[in-house]
Amino acid sequence: MFALASALAIWMRLRSLDSGTQKMRFISNAVREGATAYLKREYAAIAVFVAFAAIALWQLVGLGTAIAFLVGAFSSALIGFVGLSNSTKANARTAQAATRSLREALETGFSSGLVTSLSAVGLGLICITLAYYFLGLKALFGFGAGASSVALFARVGGGIYTKAADVGADLVGKVEEGIPEDDPRNPAVIADNVGDNVGDVAGVSADLFESYAGAIIAAMALGSLTNEPKSILLPLLLGVTGLFASLGGALFLRSAKPAKALRNASFAASLLSVLFAFLLVTQWFGDLNAFYAIATGVAVGALIAFSAEYYTSTHFAPTLQVAESATTGAATTVLSGFSIGLKSAVPAVLLICAGLLTAFHFAGLYGVGLAAVGMLSTLALNLAADAFGPVVDNAGGIVEMAGLSKKVRERTDELDAAGNTTKAIGKGFAVGSAALTALAFYTVYSTEAGLATINLMDVSVVVGLLAGGALAFFFASLTIQAVEKAAFQLVGEVHRQFKDKAILRGKKKPDYAKCVDIATVSALREMGLPALIAIGSPIAIGLLLGKAALGGLLAGALVTGVLLGLMMANSGGAWDNAKKFIEAGAYGGKGGYAHKAAVIGDTVGDPFKDTAGPSMNILIKLMGIIALVLVALF
Amino acid sequence: MFALASALAIWMRLRSLDSGTQKMRFISNAVREGATAYLKREYAAIAVFVAFAAIALWQLVGLGTAIAFLVGAFSSALIGFVGLSNSTKANARTAQAATRSLREALETGFSSGLVTSLSAVGLGLICITLAYYFLGLKALFGFGAGASSVALFARVGGGIYTKAADVGADLVGKVEEGIPEDDPRNPAVIADNVGDNVGDVAGVSADLFESYAGAIIAAMALGSLTNEPKSILLPLLLGVTGLFASLGGALFLRSAKPAKALRNASFAASLLSVLFAFLLVTQWFGDLNAFYAIATGVAVGALIAFSAEYYTSTHFAPTLQVAESATTGAATTVLSGFSIGLKSAVPAVLLICAGLLTAFHFAGLYGVGLAAVGMLSTLALNLAADAFGPVVDNAGGIVEMAGLSKKVRERTDELDAAGNTTKAIGKGFAVGSAALTALAFYTVYSTEAGLATINLMDVSVVVGLLAGGALAFFFASLTIQAVEKAAFQLVGEVHRQFKDKAILRGKKKPDYAKCVDIATVSALREMGLPALIAIGSPIAIGLLLGKAALGGLLAGALVTGVLLGLMMANSGGAWDNAKKFIEAGAYGGKGGYAHKAAVIGDTVGDPFKDTAGPSMNILIKLMGIIALVLVALF
Repeated sequence: MFALASALAIWMRLRSLDSGTQKMRFISNAVREGATAYLKREYAAIAVFVAFAAIALWQLVGLGTAIAFLVGAFSSALIGFVGLSNSTKANARTAQAATRSLREALETGFSSGLVTSLSAVGLGLICITLAYYFLGLKALFGFGAGASSVALFARVGGGIYTKAADVGADLVGKVEEGIPEDDPRNPAVIADNVGDNVGDVAGVSADLFESYAGAIIAAMALGSLTNEPKSILLPLLLGVTGLFASLGGALFLRSAKPAKALRNASFAASLLSVLFAFLLVTQWFGDLNAFYAIATGVAVGALIAFSAEYYTSTHFAPTLQVAESATTGAATTVLSGFSIGLKSAVPAVLLICAGLLTAFHFAGLYGVGLAAVGMLSTLALNLAADAFGPVVDNAGGIVEMAGLSKKVRERTDELDAAGNTTKAIGKGFAVGSAALTALAFYTVYSTEAGLATINLMDVSVVVGLLAGGALAFFFASLTIQAVEKAAFQLVGEVHRQFKDKAILRGKKKPDYAKCVDIATVSALREMGLPALIAIGSPIAIGLLLGKAALGGLLAGALVTGVLLGLMMANSGGAWDNAKKFIEAGAYGGKGGYAHKAAVIGDTVGDPFKDTAGPSMNILIKLMGIIALVLVALF
Repeated sequence: MFALASALAIWMRLRSLDSGTQKMRFISNAVREGATAYLKREYAAIAVFVAFAAIALWQLVGLGTAIAFLVGAFSSALIGFVGLSNSTKANARTAQAATRSLREALETGFSSGLVTSLSAVGLGLICITLAYYFLGLKALFGFGAGASSVALFARVGGGIYTKAADVGADLVGKVEEGIPEDDPRNPAVIADNVGDNVGDVAGVSADLFESYAGAIIAAMALGSLTNEPKSILLPLLLGVTGLFASLGGALFLRSAKPAKALRNASFAASLLSVLFAFLLVTQWFGDLNAFYAIATGVAVGALIAFSAEYYTSTHFAPTLQVAESATTGAATTVLSGFSIGLKSAVPAVLLICAGLLTAFHFAGLYGVGLAAVGMLSTLALNLAADAFGPVVDNAGGIVEMAGLSKKVRERTDELDAAGNTTKAIGKGFAVGSAALTALAFYTVYSTEAGLATINLMDVSVVVGLLAGGALAFFFASLTIQAVEKAAFQLVGEVHRQFKDKAILRGKKKPDYAKCVDIATVSALREMGLPALIAIGSPIAIGLLLGKAALGGLLAGALVTGVLLGLMMANSGGAWDNAKKFIEAGAYGGKGGYAHKAAVIGDTVGDPFKDTAGPSMNILIKLMGIIALVLVALF
């Protein structure tokens, strides 16, 4: 309640801010309209799916689960809507604030992120509490499944949309016609800006909301297996203390440099959340082992985020190595980014392993759930920092398109750079939390299934394991191809509009809405098959080969999905930043031989880091919660 | 014995053939000298390792295992030597035969492959039989470990060598100086030709020899757990019937087109091997269920090979799609090849799953072993077809360097194209057989470890699983980076030699030996870390977390390694053939925009398909046999 009230207060303050010149408002409105159009169509598709799924759950599992499913789906959709409408309003206000000062722009951008994240945390905690008291513990799995289903559409569809629009706009605009990025003559430019919001705000919020709710629910279920009744409530209360820790962390935003300010805030929030968890456990819960498990989760989250930064930031060796390899051409650029991505998955997975062993050592399987909740407890801050990225990115676009002064552009550029760092760290955080949440689902599944063992000496379990791994590869392949297909459609439309030379000369306004429409329709269409496979496979394996094989399937998808997700997110980040490093003047700078190679690397990395990679988070969690909610069928 | 005698007879006949003009002999000699130099250094390194490992095995496990280990290592090394010396002699003879007719060249090239493959099969069967009778069943694991250790060095080191030399020669020669491939002015040209033999003959032979011996040994061990004593001998006898089936298949080589001839031979050998297995089982063994398991293995092998061909041949949609995507640039080429590679892993893994379930259904765990043996029973033919590739590739190089007529070059080009197809199919066969062999090792391990379960509800097993997956990613990353580093060294040397303009003008002979030396030294050096990790990890996990966690490690590496191996082999093959398709005239042909993009795709694919991909085969088998041979320690 407190969280929602704060969100409302910040939102009111944001609304009252000046939204800039008429031109800025026009652009901001166009982006908002595009985003709303996308959301409408997407939610129409989701509504049909959710209605059918709810009826099926009602018949197969029970009414409580079906109701919780609807609430989960509705909450997630609502958060996506809040996030999107909020960030598309904040972009012009941030741009306008940048005309005044860097600090004001930073605060405006971050505040808009906070509205989204506080809504997510507040809604999550309230709904889970209500569902638990009125519908019971088992029905909560339905809530998780609802949130997961919407996240699937939001993250995968949003990922396809954002990269199709990005690639479509760049291929014709930057590459063929040589006009700059964010140029208003490009018909796909609004679609590109819409994509940033659709992918990085709505997609990321739904993904993290799913992890947040899922981790709490899984930890509650694991808590119910212990002898201590307080164990069920502890995860919920950790959500509350984490919320205060996040707000406390946000106070540390008042520092000179945006990037440093965001880092300080995040670090402070983590420390505070550990402190609050310590107080909660010693003063109320009683067993210090629970605290160690929680602290393990917080530490693993921070370290994985650092590892993501290490592999993708130009302050460290790996990305510099990718930039250097650009001097010998595109092939070496691709190879070095790819091999760094493969390697980058290793420390993150070993951190997860270490966290798993430590949390289990202290508090058994319940400890695994607590570690996941601990990692996600500072969600309010992490999601705000993540949602900050696209707002300042859009603000920069508005400054460019509205032709504001160079000084203002420099300010938004600095914010944008900080936003890129938080986005990269946010990706690491998203994968890490998805892995721990999926592990927690998997643990709950294996206990709920009533299996004595999921025996890897059993052929059907090995088959499940292999099939799960193959599923992750297939899902990644489909999402990459979806981007290619959708981008291809968009390229055709931009070509068609550019035939009218008046558009290219800037005499005539291009038909932005048409591009938005094409990106929307093709993203939603291309999402169908991956969604079907993610939902259908666990059901098929469960029915055909039984519960143990389904356990194997989940484990196989988990291992391969986490590795693939980390690899793609980090190699994509490394290529992106290597390109920016060269653009800043290294190895011949913009337009040189190395730059051309780096651009190819970056284009390869786009669907890696923004579509296929994040889709893995959804896949592993969704499969786990589906197995869990339908366990009685198998 | 029969196999070795046949090998000797064919070898004698080959030796008697004319080895061409003095210039051809000179080139052939240079390649042979380079290959021998590489082998000497490699074997010196291996000898040290093998000696230490044998002493350790003697102390830790027993004398019998240590002796079998030495025999296994020696056999594998010997086969590598036979293959290499034989293929480097056959290249000039094949080139000379091509001056006479296509048929003669085909037969000469294939015969040289047969010498290698018959030696492998003969030596494998004899050594396993002797070791079984004199040292006992358990000591056979030592034989497998010996063969695996040498295969690690041969496949990984050879893979690094061949691609470093290839990339090094191309980067300076083709790309910078614009001189053709196989041009004698290029100082790295001999190293490149040596690389073909080192990687594709010595590396492939060692890899497949390991699978062959490993599958037979694992099936014998699984057979010993059944109540039927004949079960132990059946795998060995299948090796013998498979040998005759292969020789029978080789008779079908007399057909017009080389590619079709090779395909017919392979198909005939598979059919014959099923027929012979049927006779063996019905006439001697008695239980028809064993036959079904064997036939399953043969079928799965053939289907996986077809699936590899489907994804990498220009006769089917996927590779054509990669070629088309080259028209929109390098980034889309890389993305489409990559996504096709990801997807291509799916049918192969599902085939393995189906084979696993079927074989288990008919004959339990023993059936899994029999399926692996069934798949590998036609090794004599498959390896010969595989080793044929580099011989005709080299023959083409000799024809080019010796300046023979265009007609002769056309003949060797046609053989080369057929060789590329068999190489692609061979790669599918190698991955499939490695997967089944590793599964068989894994099955034997889990029974030998005396574990009741390898429980995926046990945290340490899950940690093992995650670590195993991470290991495969790490290994792939290291091998790709090894190629980059080694190629970089070679580029430096070629640059150094080209400073002497007389070399570039063809007035002065370049220092080939220096390039061969650099490639050798850097390949062997870069191999160290991956080898250490492959050998050390199972031991470390076994000692630290116990037998069950080690089982998880094997399973995790198996799933991820097989998928990654298939992905890399097939995307590499698709890029390679898409480039050739464009070079044959599509989308603007050689030198056009699409061709440039396709060349980048091909260069990315080179270490994928020839280094990192095949290394996965070794990794998963080696880890399995190490776990097996040291199981008493954990």
